[in-house]
Amino acid sequence: MPGRAPLARWLNDTNDVTQTFLAAGQLPDLVNLAGGLPDPSTWPVSDLSDFAGRVVTEHTAEVLGYSPIDGLPDLRDRIAAEFSHGDLNLTRDNVLITTGGMQGLDLLGKVFLDPGQTIAAQSPAYLGAIDAWKPRAPQYRAMVMETNDFDAEAAMTGAQFAYTVPNFSNPSGRLVPEDQRRALVAAAEATGCWLVEDDPYGHLYYDGAPLPRMLELSANGAEVYNGPVVYLGTFSKQLAPGLRVGWVIAAPEIIVALTTAKQGSDMFTSGLCQRVALEAMERGLPEQLLPGILDLYRTRRDALCEAMQADLSDLFTWQVPEGGMFVWAVARDPALDTDRLMKTGLEHGVCISPSSVFDPMGQDRRAIRVNFTLNPPDVLAEGIRRLARATRAELRQAA
Amino acid sequence: MPGRAPLARWLNDTNDVTQTFLAAGQLPDLVNLAGGLPDPSTWPVSDLSDFAGRVVTEHTAEVLGYSPIDGLPDLRDRIAAEFSHGDLNLTRDNVLITTGGMQGLDLLGKVFLDPGQTIAAQSPAYLGAIDAWKPRAPQYRAMVMETNDFDAEAAMTGAQFAYTVPNFSNPSGRLVPEDQRRALVAAAEATGCWLVEDDPYGHLYYDGAPLPRMLELSANGAEVYNGPVVYLGTFSKQLAPGLRVGWVIAAPEIIVALTTAKQGSDMFTSGLCQRVALEAMERGLPEQLLPGILDLYRTRRDALCEAMQADLSDLFTWQVPEGGMFVWAVARDPALDTDRLMKTGLEHGVCISPSSVFDPMGQDRRAIRVNFTLNPPDVLAEGIRRLARATRAELRQAA
Repeated sequence: MPGRAPLARWLNDTNDVTQTFLAAGQLPDLVNLAGGLPDPSTWPVSDLSDFAGRVVTEHTAEVLGYSPIDGLPDLRDRIAAEFSHGDLNLTRDNVLITTGGMQGLDLLGKVFLDPGQTIAAQSPAYLGAIDAWKPRAPQYRAMVMETNDFDAEAAMTGAQFAYTVPNFSNPSGRLVPEDQRRALVAAAEATGCWLVEDDPYGHLYYDGAPLPRMLELSANGAEVYNGPVVYLGTFSKQLAPGLRVGWVIAAPEIIVALTTAKQGSDMFTSGLCQRVALEAMERGLPEQLLPGILDLYRTRRDALCEAMQADLSDLFTWQVPEGGMFVWAVARDPALDTDRLMKTGLEHGVCISPSSVFDPMGQDRRAIRVNFTLNPPDVLAEGIRRLARATRAELRQAA
Repeated sequence: MPGRAPLARWLNDTNDVTQTFLAAGQLPDLVNLAGGLPDPSTWPVSDLSDFAGRVVTEHTAEVLGYSPIDGLPDLRDRIAAEFSHGDLNLTRDNVLITTGGMQGLDLLGKVFLDPGQTIAAQSPAYLGAIDAWKPRAPQYRAMVMETNDFDAEAAMTGAQFAYTVPNFSNPSGRLVPEDQRRALVAAAEATGCWLVEDDPYGHLYYDGAPLPRMLELSANGAEVYNGPVVYLGTFSKQLAPGLRVGWVIAAPEIIVALTTAKQGSDMFTSGLCQRVALEAMERGLPEQLLPGILDLYRTRRDALCEAMQADLSDLFTWQVPEGGMFVWAVARDPALDTDRLMKTGLEHGVCISPSSVFDPMGQDRRAIRVNFTLNPPDVLAEGIRRLARATRAELRQAA
């Protein structure tokens, strides 16, 4: 009798970091600095409870029935209106509703990639995006945008799309400056490469006014946007992740292709979740919640960076991020292997994300990502003290 | 300036039938026999409204937060318990929650298929499954299981998996008999081919007692099921499609692989939707609703078949289905092209599904699928009168 048919090849390409994360969740008294979780105190629980109950009776057909693959028309209209600005004219045809921001990434892989094609990815890159594209077996070209000789056009030539998180990139926390945004848009126009602007943290500016989105910078006043930018948004950080409602804004031809892909992925996003999100938008809930979220996370960012300055400054270097959810810290000693540090950290009661998971090649072992949104200041400080002890222990081991 | 990067190749392989369906939705006074929709009167609206409001406050972390990729533990346990039976021992590790039944199909394609590999598919096959697997670029081998010389082992040798809908197949309405179920299970064991049992209609038996599932027939008393069957279920027909909650039952190694694929597809299924479904299960709602659903749909099946007998028996042949949602009718005259009939039908105010969309090669133009669950008897009868007129018009045209 033969063995059972083997699984697809991309499944061989995994690491044990996720397993370690999951196991870490079970440890008592662990300080978790590894995830990218919002603070549950920011969720508008009673409003969402009220909306969830009401939309089932008030919009029964949309909420309980089969609804359009590309999303509820009212929600698409609302998002189009919200993002239209200056020269950027969006209609419903520019908007696809997705099952969380993650599904947008999966669908992009399906419509843009045949096996072996190239993604130009901002480096380091979001782990979830790398995961989403594994089944499409892409090649990667790293875009290290911090260096002074970064050449967007060279990086994007021959790639199917460029993947960027311009606002407080996950994991690096970097804010891509406006001139570089303009250079990326110009390179997209010049090369024919699509330009993906993944923007889950776009509202989380703690220190200054938001920079213009590449979606806006690529608009040319066309009656219906038809530019090279594919913008991804999500309610996960503005309302609550459990709703699983995100969206894509792009040229209508791309929305049509993504809709074909979505049909075969999950048919449509739950009407219950879409209607709850729309109800929240119509009542201005995200805007009302934002100042409180910004205050909370700004305080935590400051507390984390202060704790790091006190306990980690001889071991790591970092930049204070102007927004988002993460500090990216690079080890001063090249002998430090942050995959090992993650495990040693768990022994010391703290969990961080090692840089290898943000490298499509899995090679980078020099940095860590530290989250500051989930824990209050005293827990962040305790976590950093533990991390400092773990790093010293690990360096002794390595010496 | 170069054109923009082209889209993935599988997107070229589409037809205009879906476009036609969508346009049909806008026609006034159309009798829609094309879809596979449940009757909205079967939805437990006030219960679901009550659950939706309550679970947000009572299970806030699970409902609004990031929840486990593989599903809420309580829901996985509940489904494992519900399906365990006789020799079939299931635990949480045998269950993955999916975003509707469709996502189960997408995930199967991701974990079982490298490009060019073979699916042995019950023929005709569910349109949605064909759609879900297009991005994986599979080859198809048709399993025509009605013929007396069907050889399951020959059909499944060398295929990655066999795809079947044993209970009232979509589109054919066929009930796969128990001896053939046993033969398929034996062939899976003999060949190493995985055996997919897609079962959205398993509770919709109008005339007799349910046959054993292949999942059960493949159980050998192992403490944790580890057989070759991959079973797909959904709440869409038992509660409401808008929830987008389905599940996969399989060997733990397959659940692990599917979970990896789900992580990159939509991270996790909405906790709000999962908790509403679980609440409904805990209160026995599906069982309470079932007798009413069966009465309603049995009456409609009978009404449709009576109308067809009166108006279509000289034009088509069919078998009265013992369950499910569809009658599959084959044209007596081989000159009838049912792709054309669909369009002519629209001109006569009726919409049916042509057989070509259920053929992975898009070739079969001899049959139609007629739904009986959505419309009351008088509308079904009117639809069939229109279909008879359209068929005669189309045959005159073809002559």
